[in-house]
Amino acid sequence: MSKTLKIVTIGGGSSYTPELIEGFILRKDELPIRELWLVDIEEGKEKLEIVGEMAKRMVKKAGLDWDIHLTLDRRAALKDADFVTTQFRVGLLDARIRDERLPLKYGMIGQETNGAGGMMKAFRTIPVILSIIEDMKELCPNAWLVNFTNPAGMITETAIKVGGWKKTVGLCNVPIGSFKSNHIVLGYPEDSDKLFHKYAGLNHFHWHKVWNECGDDVTEELIDRLYNPKSEWAGKVSEMKNIRKLPFNYEQVKELGVLPCGYHRYYYITEEMLRDELEDYKNHTTRAEVVKQTEKELFELYKDPALDYKPEQLTKRGGTHYSEAACELIASIYNDKRTVMVVSTQNNGTITDLPYDCIVEVSSVITGHGPEPFNWGSFKPCARGILQMMKSMEETVIKAGVNGDYDAALQAFTINPIVTSGETARTLLNEMLVANKDYLPQFETTIEKLIEEGVTYNPGDL
Amino acid sequence: MSKTLKIVTIGGGSSYTPELIEGFILRKDELPIRELWLVDIEEGKEKLEIVGEMAKRMVKKAGLDWDIHLTLDRRAALKDADFVTTQFRVGLLDARIRDERLPLKYGMIGQETNGAGGMMKAFRTIPVILSIIEDMKELCPNAWLVNFTNPAGMITETAIKVGGWKKTVGLCNVPIGSFKSNHIVLGYPEDSDKLFHKYAGLNHFHWHKVWNECGDDVTEELIDRLYNPKSEWAGKVSEMKNIRKLPFNYEQVKELGVLPCGYHRYYYITEEMLRDELEDYKNHTTRAEVVKQTEKELFELYKDPALDYKPEQLTKRGGTHYSEAACELIASIYNDKRTVMVVSTQNNGTITDLPYDCIVEVSSVITGHGPEPFNWGSFKPCARGILQMMKSMEETVIKAGVNGDYDAALQAFTINPIVTSGETARTLLNEMLVANKDYLPQFETTIEKLIEEGVTYNPGDL
Amino acid sequence: MSKTLKIVTIGGGSSYTPELIEGFILRKDELPIRELWLVDIEEGKEKLEIVGEMAKRMVKKAGLDWDIHLTLDRRAALKDADFVTTQFRVGLLDARIRDERLPLKYGMIGQETNGAGGMMKAFRTIPVILSIIEDMKELCPNAWLVNFTNPAGMITETAIKVGGWKKTVGLCNVPIGSFKSNHIVLGYPEDSDKLFHKYAGLNHFHWHKVWNECGDDVTEELIDRLYNPKSEWAGKVSEMKNIRKLPFNYEQVKELGVLPCGYHRYYYITEEMLRDELEDYKNHTTRAEVVKQTEKELFELYKDPALDYKPEQLTKRGGTHYSEAACELIASIYNDKRTVMVVSTQNNGTITDLPYDCIVEVSSVITGHGPEPFNWGSFKPCARGILQMMKSMEETVIKAGVNGDYDAALQAFTINPIVTSGETARTLLNEMLVANKDYLPQFETTIEKLIEEGVTYNPGDL
Amino acid sequence: MSKTLKIVTIGGGSSYTPELIEGFILRKDELPIRELWLVDIEEGKEKLEIVGEMAKRMVKKAGLDWDIHLTLDRRAALKDADFVTTQFRVGLLDARIRDERLPLKYGMIGQETNGAGGMMKAFRTIPVILSIIEDMKELCPNAWLVNFTNPAGMITETAIKVGGWKKTVGLCNVPIGSFKSNHIVLGYPEDSDKLFHKYAGLNHFHWHKVWNECGDDVTEELIDRLYNPKSEWAGKVSEMKNIRKLPFNYEQVKELGVLPCGYHRYYYITEEMLRDELEDYKNHTTRAEVVKQTEKELFELYKDPALDYKPEQLTKRGGTHYSEAACELIASIYNDKRTVMVVSTQNNGTITDLPYDCIVEVSSVITGHGPEPFNWGSFKPCARGILQMMKSMEETVIKAGVNGDYDAALQAFTINPIVTSGETARTLLNEMLVANKDYLPQFETTIEKLIEEGVTYNPGDL
Repeated sequence: MSKTLKIVTIGGGSSYTPELIEGFILRKDELPIRELWLVDIEEGKEKLEIVGEMAKRMVKKAGLDWDIHLTLDRRAALKDADFVTTQFRVGLLDARIRDERLPLKYGMIGQETNGAGGMMKAFRTIPVILSIIEDMKELCPNAWLVNFTNPAGMITETAIKVGGWKKTVGLCNVPIGSFKSNHIVLGYPEDSDKLFHKYAGLNHFHWHKVWNECGDDVTEELIDRLYNPKSEWAGKVSEMKNIRKLPFNYEQVKELGVLPCGYHRYYYITEEMLRDELEDYKNHTTRAEVVKQTEKELFELYKDPALDYKPEQLTKRGGTHYSEAACELIASIYNDKRTVMVVSTQNNGTITDLPYDCIVEVSSVITGHGPEPFNWGSFKPCARGILQMMKSMEETVIKAGVNGDYDAALQAFTINPIVTSGETARTLLNEMLVANKDYLPQFETTIEKLIEEGVTYNPGDL
Repeated sequence: MSKTLKIVTIGGGSSYTPELIEGFILRKDELPIRELWLVDIEEGKEKLEIVGEMAKRMVKKAGLDWDIHLTLDRRAALKDADFVTTQFRVGLLDARIRDERLPLKYGMIGQETNGAGGMMKAFRTIPVILSIIEDMKELCPNAWLVNFTNPAGMITETAIKVGGWKKTVGLCNVPIGSFKSNHIVLGYPEDSDKLFHKYAGLNHFHWHKVWNECGDDVTEELIDRLYNPKSEWAGKVSEMKNIRKLPFNYEQVKELGVLPCGYHRYYYITEEMLRDELEDYKNHTTRAEVVKQTEKELFELYKDPALDYKPEQLTKRGGTHYSEAACELIASIYNDKRTVMVVSTQNNGTITDLPYDCIVEVSSVITGHGPEPFNWGSFKPCARGILQMMKSMEETVIKAGVNGDYDAALQAFTINPIVTSGETARTLLNEMLVANKDYLPQFETTIEKLIEEGVTYNPGDL
Repeated sequence: MSKTLKIVTIGGGSSYTPELIEGFILRKDELPIRELWLVDIEEGKEKLEIVGEMAKRMVKKAGLDWDIHLTLDRRAALKDADFVTTQFRVGLLDARIRDERLPLKYGMIGQETNGAGGMMKAFRTIPVILSIIEDMKELCPNAWLVNFTNPAGMITETAIKVGGWKKTVGLCNVPIGSFKSNHIVLGYPEDSDKLFHKYAGLNHFHWHKVWNECGDDVTEELIDRLYNPKSEWAGKVSEMKNIRKLPFNYEQVKELGVLPCGYHRYYYITEEMLRDELEDYKNHTTRAEVVKQTEKELFELYKDPALDYKPEQLTKRGGTHYSEAACELIASIYNDKRTVMVVSTQNNGTITDLPYDCIVEVSSVITGHGPEPFNWGSFKPCARGILQMMKSMEETVIKAGVNGDYDAALQAFTINPIVTSGETARTLLNEMLVANKDYLPQFETTIEKLIEEGVTYNPGDL
Repeated sequence: MSKTLKIVTIGGGSSYTPELIEGFILRKDELPIRELWLVDIEEGKEKLEIVGEMAKRMVKKAGLDWDIHLTLDRRAALKDADFVTTQFRVGLLDARIRDERLPLKYGMIGQETNGAGGMMKAFRTIPVILSIIEDMKELCPNAWLVNFTNPAGMITETAIKVGGWKKTVGLCNVPIGSFKSNHIVLGYPEDSDKLFHKYAGLNHFHWHKVWNECGDDVTEELIDRLYNPKSEWAGKVSEMKNIRKLPFNYEQVKELGVLPCGYHRYYYITEEMLRDELEDYKNHTTRAEVVKQTEKELFELYKDPALDYKPEQLTKRGGTHYSEAACELIASIYNDKRTVMVVSTQNNGTITDLPYDCIVEVSSVITGHGPEPFNWGSFKPCARGILQMMKSMEETVIKAGVNGDYDAALQAFTINPIVTSGETARTLLNEMLVANKDYLPQFETTIEKLIEEGVTYNPGDL
């Protein structure tokens, strides 16, 4: 690998960028960074400049001589890159608002990663990630692609299986949260790493087991402490900022025998999650809307020419740890550090219940040649079946998203258990396609036909 | 195998019995029947006598000297049996009414085979089938067990995997319906068998492919004729008497690439099915209630000492072809006839997407040593995932039903996509357990605890 | 499918052709043959004319108006064909003599189907079968390819996986022999078909289980009758004309629990087989040499302008039943007859121990759309491992044969248990490559290099 | 886990014990050892005392207060043990001499781990390991069993699958050798650990891949350096003390694409290995005979009351690193150190080509709860098939060894590619059974029958 590094961040105008910069600064001794390129698109130009200037201030304050480039020219940025990170959001937060509010309009949870919203986000993102890879093949054929654009699992699967970019790693911040909270709940200091965690599943749909340093399996004890309504911890500790802390069904989780992730709430306590989201829908306080407000405030802060460090408020944003994970991943690959991380990577039999060539999210040792996952094996039936169903949904979404295949899109909506199958699902899909028409080149003909047939999307209705 | 046959029917007092008797009479040259035992329980005594007397009249009319035994003594019946067929319904039709109406009370489809109702029916049936097998081990260790008690797939899996009775075959009448309608839709005479059908999946959750006699795959054409809203056949032909003819989503079925079975409507067009069922709930015209009325009328007919043939009205009952299938299965085993039938049998890799040792419903050649399934292989992702999830639900139901495991029961409710996960699912499960307390010895302690905690079931509320 | 049939036989000058013609004549009511094309190459012209004239006499005698074409123009023959059968032998019998004698020269069994000889035969045949398929894609894109050129399994796998010709079926006569002998040994009339046979494995490396018409598994009884040295049948009944009747090791076969095929002798009693073959080597009575003599005699007979029927002597030739199998296969596909046959076809999970997409030889129902295999599942470890190893050898042979890959060829020799690994294996491979240089275009560069390095082949030494 | 440790070594009288003691002394800060029990049997009493006294001197010299117990009372030793290591050899080195020489007498490689010798060693060891486990269940139900008695893979599989002792880990010293030599060959310092090694396969039958710290896959380069006859390293570096350095076939290893282990020579260059071994047979210099002499000399050294450190000569013994591996494994489990080691452990899908529940030898992170293997996935066909065959042989050996099943034993001999199938294999098996009659209680009846039939073993003939 290169002696010095060129790192490129696509979607560099994101409010997360300061965390990323902070992460790189913290690892300045491990990462001989020469150039940092923050890339964005025309619509993101203003944000890019604000956050980019702040990044420069942070780097300067750290006494580092890194070249920070702010650009709209993706190809210039990619040229000879060593690492490319992706944190872009096609359609910006307004698209996320639609992803969440349109399903709620029809009484369904949107879920921007694996509900109807997430499927639509995949449709918007797939053409872009494939186009980035086309550029990378030409401009930086040896670079690593570190993806944390959601739905991270499906986008990583698209990059590897469709785009053929084997050196892609998908990242997620969810496991970091549960890793910390599990230590706390079992009485370890907050920054302890004594417990051995093993995660497996899909992005935003994984489970984990935990052992203590004596080799005892403490999974059951954790289930009891976290989810038994009689536990002193019940409802007090949460693994995630951006998901409601609604309690899981204790008996059901006990039967699982593995610890769920926060996103399992959408599937395991659908009723309660939907009820709360409908409340948010009414009050215009869906997660997307809250985040949009937070972001606005953050950018106001970032504008301050005196601000040269990551502000406290960013942690409220929800995606905290994402950038930390990205920086650690890059440092671990570059230095063959063999850190244990949870990443989206090729299955190759790690989870025997899933197709050999699909992408899974699993605990892995990060080496100089990428992730080496710990073998997981097979799940109990009760986790196995729903996992397999989610993977089949992902595969169908990718098929639809790559080919602009309406039949597959409707099929994916039908499979997804938080989308109610039937005519309303079709109505929702149609309206979402029309609402996203600017971002779905692959569905162009279909969308034209839908509009002809009278399908409309009226932002005012939302 | 024996030179002459002793056949035992458990649940002999069923309204279906005349169809069974007719089936045996039609195969009198293939089946050297010596004794036919119709077994029932105390509560079914009256029906047993009515239908048993009619059976005797039918046999007499056919000029046959078979011994027809009507008995409540199951062990006497099982002694030295060659074939045992099971068509009993624990809790009678009143239990089915609860299976269907209780979920609807909470806004969910009951579905007496793979919804909340079906899971409860499994819980009631599992202890009985295991007890029958205990008797068989002692009294007729070489007999074949032909199960058509629903949920036929789960009961067959219980019999084989838990009970260890390898010589069990599960039967379903659904495929016979689609076999006939596919011929009609493609312009063949109604009784033609020119098309080659291959079915695979689970009981009430299978798909099929069809080829014509020239070797052309006509599956896509059938999908188009049956489900394209522009087809002349749309909504005109139905594979099942007891399921609404609501149209499938054409594009979604096209994407499947295989023909669904009628029961897939509960999963593929859940919204419409639920809407209709809620209407029935209001009008007290759920399927169970309609069947109860039909049965009452049938038994009035059966009482007629002049009636010595299967009355026309029985076909209305819905389960038509079941008994025909049972008789043909028995004849095919006894005579090594090698008829092609769709049966629930051991997977052993027939469907590679499912556990090796589970029970699947697949097209099989019925030989003297039982079913030899045609290999199926793997499904496309969109059918694969939901199939795997249903199997995981079945396995969890069986675990719960065998051990009286409440955690597993709640888990099964959580997995099932037509049960909305969350607090109401728990409420429903609890109420159903209490409502079925007379039939769930394995859940005795749990139910007592629930009652103590104030869970009640008031038949009047239904 | 066509109303009338054009059938093409590549390698039409074979001594087997009369059996094929007889087979077609016997099925004249099932097969509306219009044209029969016998194709051969320049070197086979004389034989083609002799056997072709005889074929014409046979057809004429049968009073049929089929057009018999004798041609060296393969493309003219393939044009609009409905069925193409392949029975060619690249390099003629002299190549087979080398396949058998060269390994023996180095103290190893040649085995023209799955020993060193068979691997070399595959190398010679692969370029030809792929070239036939190229022509078929252009000239008869809907034709079925019925392959009985050995090694039939590997050639079928090449045709389907490399050539992409899905409508290929591989045939073998071995199962017909054991089917007949098993009936005889259990006391059935010679032409009985009462027993249900299920075969699975690879071409010339399959096992089978047998049930009688009462459903009893009689496999163990057959093992005892055939292979127990104390049995009255021991050594008396043989399934194959062309393999020595050396007795299997009774205890070892008992442990298998399935019936081996004749070719398993090369692997299960290697010592005795080798000893006998070395004797033949010394006496110039290897199978290939015997067959060459038989063929010479057969062609003398065929020249007789009075001969218009298949002569008795052909059955001595060893490959009897091959052509019968081919004709029955064609009739079964054309008429959707659903005959049960043992064919080489796509695995798709039929044998779960082997790769999903490989070719296996299994009992199948032959339908209008080709073979529908009975599911087999998994073997006991003792059969499973050696089967998996043979498949890996086949895959490596195909890789070597398609790409002219020397490393893979040496690897295949190393894997094969009847080739002793080490320097002599390399010497043998090198000499065989040089000896076959006229037939191995894909290995051209390698062979040139070997010759340069001093590797020679002197036919006189053989 | 306990605050202080009781460690038990079965076969404590082994010449390796000083290495083990040294290993514990080196880890005195990691392992709070309280008691060390060296257990042996009556025949090993003298050696136990010699080596035991020396162990005491070593511990004393290190200034440690560990209690060293020398005992023939296995049950007393096992009581409350924390770790049990097994390094016993049933029948002592004389049995190994028979394991190696008897096959050579019949012209076959003996191979004391996976040839005929290894199978016989498994038969002798299986009853003992199962009896140790029976004691452990009663006396130390929480102990870890660290097995390095050969054939380590089969014995570990027996312990886990048959004995049900999940906390068993099998050890091998082979990977340590190749780890070191690979570093040297690529120009790293001898004690470097920069390269990332990933091993997978079975004990004495595994392959590995290697990456450097830049993430480059250097496997191909290593194959070239080690096995290309033109390489400067060719034949100069060897991974093993006790296996001849005969060169692999370069092209064949290139095709493998993974690095073989030393024992693969028996399978990949059988001819040369056999030739050399036959030479040794003639000269009475088989490995077993050499080792016996070395051991004799070692014990002479050990008797010296002044010797209180591991003598240089022990490294010549061949099994070097074994004890080091054992000590490191124990330290890693006790301290949850997460060292990467190559161990025999449960597959659970790590190698997808092998049965889920079998034992494999794979690179693993050693945690407080035991090995967590890195996922491997699937091998290329050329490694896959022979691996699957070896596993099937192991399973058949275990079946034979557990049940004293002669049919299975003969089957295992038939499967093994370095045993020539046929009558001589049977003769060899019979003679080996008789020669080992004192150590094969499970085969008692069979052996009696063989003796009656005239099978003899005359030590003088050897």
